[in-house]
Amino acid sequence: MNEFGRLLRTTIFGESHGEAVGICLQGVPAGLSLQSSDFEADLERRKGGIQKGTTPRKEEDIPLLKSGVFNGKTTGAPILILFENNNIRSTDYDQQRSFPRPGHADFVAEKKYGGFQDYRGGGHFSGRLTVALVAAGVIAKKLLQKINIHASLIEAGGINNISEGLARAIEAKDSIGGIVECKVDHLPIGLGEPFFDSVESLIAHLAFAIPAIKGIEFGDGFSSAKMFGSEHNDAIENAQGKTKTNHAGGINGGLTNGNELIFRVAVKPTSSTPQMQQSWNKETQEVAPFSVKGRHDLCIALRVPVIIEAITALVLADLMMLEQRIPRIL
Amino acid sequence: MNEFGRLLRTTIFGESHGEAVGICLQGVPAGLSLQSSDFEADLERRKGGIQKGTTPRKEEDIPLLKSGVFNGKTTGAPILILFENNNIRSTDYDQQRSFPRPGHADFVAEKKYGGFQDYRGGGHFSGRLTVALVAAGVIAKKLLQKINIHASLIEAGGINNISEGLARAIEAKDSIGGIVECKVDHLPIGLGEPFFDSVESLIAHLAFAIPAIKGIEFGDGFSSAKMFGSEHNDAIENAQGKTKTNHAGGINGGLTNGNELIFRVAVKPTSSTPQMQQSWNKETQEVAPFSVKGRHDLCIALRVPVIIEAITALVLADLMMLEQRIPRIL
Amino acid sequence: MNEFGRLLRTTIFGESHGEAVGICLQGVPAGLSLQSSDFEADLERRKGGIQKGTTPRKEEDIPLLKSGVFNGKTTGAPILILFENNNIRSTDYDQQRSFPRPGHADFVAEKKYGGFQDYRGGGHFSGRLTVALVAAGVIAKKLLQKINIHASLIEAGGINNISEGLARAIEAKDSIGGIVECKVDHLPIGLGEPFFDSVESLIAHLAFAIPAIKGIEFGDGFSSAKMFGSEHNDAIENAQGKTKTNHAGGINGGLTNGNELIFRVAVKPTSSTPQMQQSWNKETQEVAPFSVKGRHDLCIALRVPVIIEAITALVLADLMMLEQRIPRIL
Amino acid sequence: MNEFGRLLRTTIFGESHGEAVGICLQGVPAGLSLQSSDFEADLERRKGGIQKGTTPRKEEDIPLLKSGVFNGKTTGAPILILFENNNIRSTDYDQQRSFPRPGHADFVAEKKYGGFQDYRGGGHFSGRLTVALVAAGVIAKKLLQKINIHASLIEAGGINNISEGLARAIEAKDSIGGIVECKVDHLPIGLGEPFFDSVESLIAHLAFAIPAIKGIEFGDGFSSAKMFGSEHNDAIENAQGKTKTNHAGGINGGLTNGNELIFRVAVKPTSSTPQMQQSWNKETQEVAPFSVKGRHDLCIALRVPVIIEAITALVLADLMMLEQRIPRIL
Repeated sequence: MNEFGRLLRTTIFGESHGEAVGICLQGVPAGLSLQSSDFEADLERRKGGIQKGTTPRKEEDIPLLKSGVFNGKTTGAPILILFENNNIRSTDYDQQRSFPRPGHADFVAEKKYGGFQDYRGGGHFSGRLTVALVAAGVIAKKLLQKINIHASLIEAGGINNISEGLARAIEAKDSIGGIVECKVDHLPIGLGEPFFDSVESLIAHLAFAIPAIKGIEFGDGFSSAKMFGSEHNDAIENAQGKTKTNHAGGINGGLTNGNELIFRVAVKPTSSTPQMQQSWNKETQEVAPFSVKGRHDLCIALRVPVIIEAITALVLADLMMLEQRIPRIL
Repeated sequence: MNEFGRLLRTTIFGESHGEAVGICLQGVPAGLSLQSSDFEADLERRKGGIQKGTTPRKEEDIPLLKSGVFNGKTTGAPILILFENNNIRSTDYDQQRSFPRPGHADFVAEKKYGGFQDYRGGGHFSGRLTVALVAAGVIAKKLLQKINIHASLIEAGGINNISEGLARAIEAKDSIGGIVECKVDHLPIGLGEPFFDSVESLIAHLAFAIPAIKGIEFGDGFSSAKMFGSEHNDAIENAQGKTKTNHAGGINGGLTNGNELIFRVAVKPTSSTPQMQQSWNKETQEVAPFSVKGRHDLCIALRVPVIIEAITALVLADLMMLEQRIPRIL
Repeated sequence: MNEFGRLLRTTIFGESHGEAVGICLQGVPAGLSLQSSDFEADLERRKGGIQKGTTPRKEEDIPLLKSGVFNGKTTGAPILILFENNNIRSTDYDQQRSFPRPGHADFVAEKKYGGFQDYRGGGHFSGRLTVALVAAGVIAKKLLQKINIHASLIEAGGINNISEGLARAIEAKDSIGGIVECKVDHLPIGLGEPFFDSVESLIAHLAFAIPAIKGIEFGDGFSSAKMFGSEHNDAIENAQGKTKTNHAGGINGGLTNGNELIFRVAVKPTSSTPQMQQSWNKETQEVAPFSVKGRHDLCIALRVPVIIEAITALVLADLMMLEQRIPRIL
Repeated sequence: MNEFGRLLRTTIFGESHGEAVGICLQGVPAGLSLQSSDFEADLERRKGGIQKGTTPRKEEDIPLLKSGVFNGKTTGAPILILFENNNIRSTDYDQQRSFPRPGHADFVAEKKYGGFQDYRGGGHFSGRLTVALVAAGVIAKKLLQKINIHASLIEAGGINNISEGLARAIEAKDSIGGIVECKVDHLPIGLGEPFFDSVESLIAHLAFAIPAIKGIEFGDGFSSAKMFGSEHNDAIENAQGKTKTNHAGGINGGLTNGNELIFRVAVKPTSSTPQMQQSWNKETQEVAPFSVKGRHDLCIALRVPVIIEAITALVLADLMMLEQRIPRIL
């Protein structure tokens, strides 16, 4: 199943080199102003070809609003957003059939779907689908109004200066990963559900839906495992729940505590590296040298911040709706 | 909502100092042999009072099978397991009403539920409910048969020798956290769903349902963010998908790749530390010194491995059922 | 899966002759006053042994509130209600193993669960489980406040005088069915969702979960199929949507229209009739005469009104919550 | 929420006079052969303009397969099917803004969505969306292989000769309703779940999602309420569960029993009748005469059989998948 959310429900579909990718978003309240132009800024942040280290593939990324919007406002009915795939060079990918790319889903998808999967460019497993997530995130952000979500790349290739990290990748002709940090403020107290739908659970669920994410930590995260309780606990200072420190990253018992929500995700290096690799060749039935052709990012992590914002917005908007903090008609 | 799973569905209920905690487990195939004794070993691993650093509270932890089992076998109908709370000293917790414990859910639960929550010992937010998760995990493990799940504490209080870590905590009279690592072998290729229900997404979702977990990483996790693509990619070596290395932790594109599944979680130090702390007093409306009374673990992380095994088993059994790898009648 | 509802979620479990039956109810707002005594009136209406034509089995039907209630109020956490089965005479049912009772689930359950089902008294398929539905309905009704749900038996054994219908059954020594009509007033406009979650869809879904229900119709129902459009359409008369007639039963486009909601269900005659029947004998492998032993209702339809009220209340409370017409804290 | 199904999951979207209507279908196994031409026959059966009594609106109804199909086979990824709305005359519908049409969703949708709904031609509530259901049904039927679903109109305008019923409608210049009967054979024993997901529950849920359906009955349905138990019970005759009679319509205890599944739905007369009606005028704030303009069916029931087949196929395919009777790769 390719869907997520309780009251704000996202269904994602499409393939990298098929006709289109897109989302169906259910539960958006009626009366939200929505234009194509609302999507531009975030889609631009995600798009390749801008920053050093990202792919030159020029996707136009125009969101086609096929349903759920009327006279510039949402109607309350499901919103379908389609992105047509116009800039496809499938011949680049023929090699994949016999040579599953290391680090990619090629091999596992072949096994799972018995060879019927669309193998071109990763097909349904492609990072291309994150364009749809970003579009859904734009709508979710609009629903969140004053709640402010900001994610940024704080480390690339092990270096906390991003430009230096990229320079190292370009010099080494190898792909790199990075760390993205996300902060959210102006959150009310009590978002999230006890146990299975904790704020951490929901954000982590969606974060690991993004290709290349291999870790997530909230507040002090893995560092907290080395601390004493007396160091880690955040003393509450007033009736609004403001804490003196924020080791917990704004969450207690799985619920937002009104302080800044902070988490970080680890992005692995782009699987498609210009370096020569080894992989098993299905036809020759042996391991052989292999290099990935086509257009690829040296540092996919550069694209991740806006996607992390999108999934965070989707989770938080859903939880806000569960708490009746977003009305059914705007 | 306190439930999780698609075909194997777990609903959790209860409060630390109420009458009972328990689970309702739906979707278990008919014909699985199930006795009370099946639960003993794992419940014992979770139970306090055994190892240094765990609470002396003596819970008997007897699973009462109220439905779904007949003549020693599962019937296919929902299984209700109840654990009665017999060993309750509620007077220990009266203080909580006015003095929300730092690091606990006391303050946020009060806000979320308008003061109607059962505040005794954390109520529905208590780690006590993990006894029900462990019981569910026992059933899930039985369904997984030859798939072997093993979790262990690999670091306590920042030290990879657990006894030393505990000694440090006892000496400092302060609580500590730890790192739990989980490994699973004999997994088939292709468990997990593209995007929203990746293996990482589902395991992370449930892992963060466990109180005190603040981070999770798969394979090389956060370290992978510092690697080059050519270092991180795991070369496929044969038709079964065996890889030369296992930086990915057994997952590609969100699906199991047939190699060992490996992940680690970060457990924060127990919030209830013997140390004197500061917290806001609701009645006096000021910050004041505060110390937690009652029976508490110095290192809650000691109890976590068997719980991590349980949630891993629940996720994997559900995915195995989705792939029709567990029959409807055993 | 044995669960239903989006924001107010009911999970049902148990067997007729097992230890207990019960429900887990998730999503009930915090702060609702709830005592055991709240359940008495509706449980009494459902109970056998009172009216002519119902079974003399004396179930005490005491709802045990195991979780989610504290100091006489709901806490916002899942509510578990257990009914212990104290009055069991399993020996009555041994015959069922070899002789599946006509009209019952015995045969199909045997096939579906490979013989592992609890066959005693219908096991998990027993009407006994409706005691749990009624209990859930009591809570849902409390949430609905001024919305008034009233169901009654309007026909028994084909006669619209119920006493006469029962007299005919007793005379014939045969079981009978009946028609139950349900009316709901003070509903707001707009409950229900377009297409898949229309009010009719949700009520019908739950109505057919009740054993013995074989038909449902809203408003004029099957009669409407014989009318002209100009006869059937209800003219709207004022800004509040009051209609001159109510052929539609208070629903347009799947949504409540503010007029009285009316529907009827058909209850088949109790499958367990005192009359001699034919059935296939698993052991002798031939059709043979057969009569049902044990305690049974001549007219199960007598018990249905309060169950229909319960399922209606569950659906409407859920829809009211979706429309944010029931607050999260009461 | 506009979605339905557990393992085969349908999400519907679109508006009558918007850009498109369509569905997203999740869970379809990989390897199913699928072409545009597969949809022709069923779409043709649903289409207007063919039979007397149906609307002359000429929709081309071409299913655009936007995702999930590759090289003429399903891939296992979500299938998006889009139907563009090419033949729109919106000016016909401007009247609706001030004059809610009796029997339609106009009034309730205005209230539910605060006036933001797409009001043209019923918008998201239009019968136009059933084109998407039919398309989903085509795929579900292919999955069901030898299971044969056949629905037909057995009564129109109260007459069991359909041509006579239509002639009466045309003569009276008024719309009529009808009764559709559906039969399914070659079903395995045991499809359906106890209680909430009985076969009747699921079929009824989807049947009432179809506009204009006001009643449903299984087997003898409402007639069974007038029978004795000894008349209604179907005697089992052999080890395969064949019954001598089929009053139960092929269902016991909510599960298929291997005999023919039979049910009937009541279709109300088309709300848009050529007859002059009364309705409340929002602008003048008074009741006034009113006649519906535009292209409408005199007997919408003519289109219903293929839609009923579609929803039946969707339910049964889902249940077959739950029973692992349809493999994950075809």
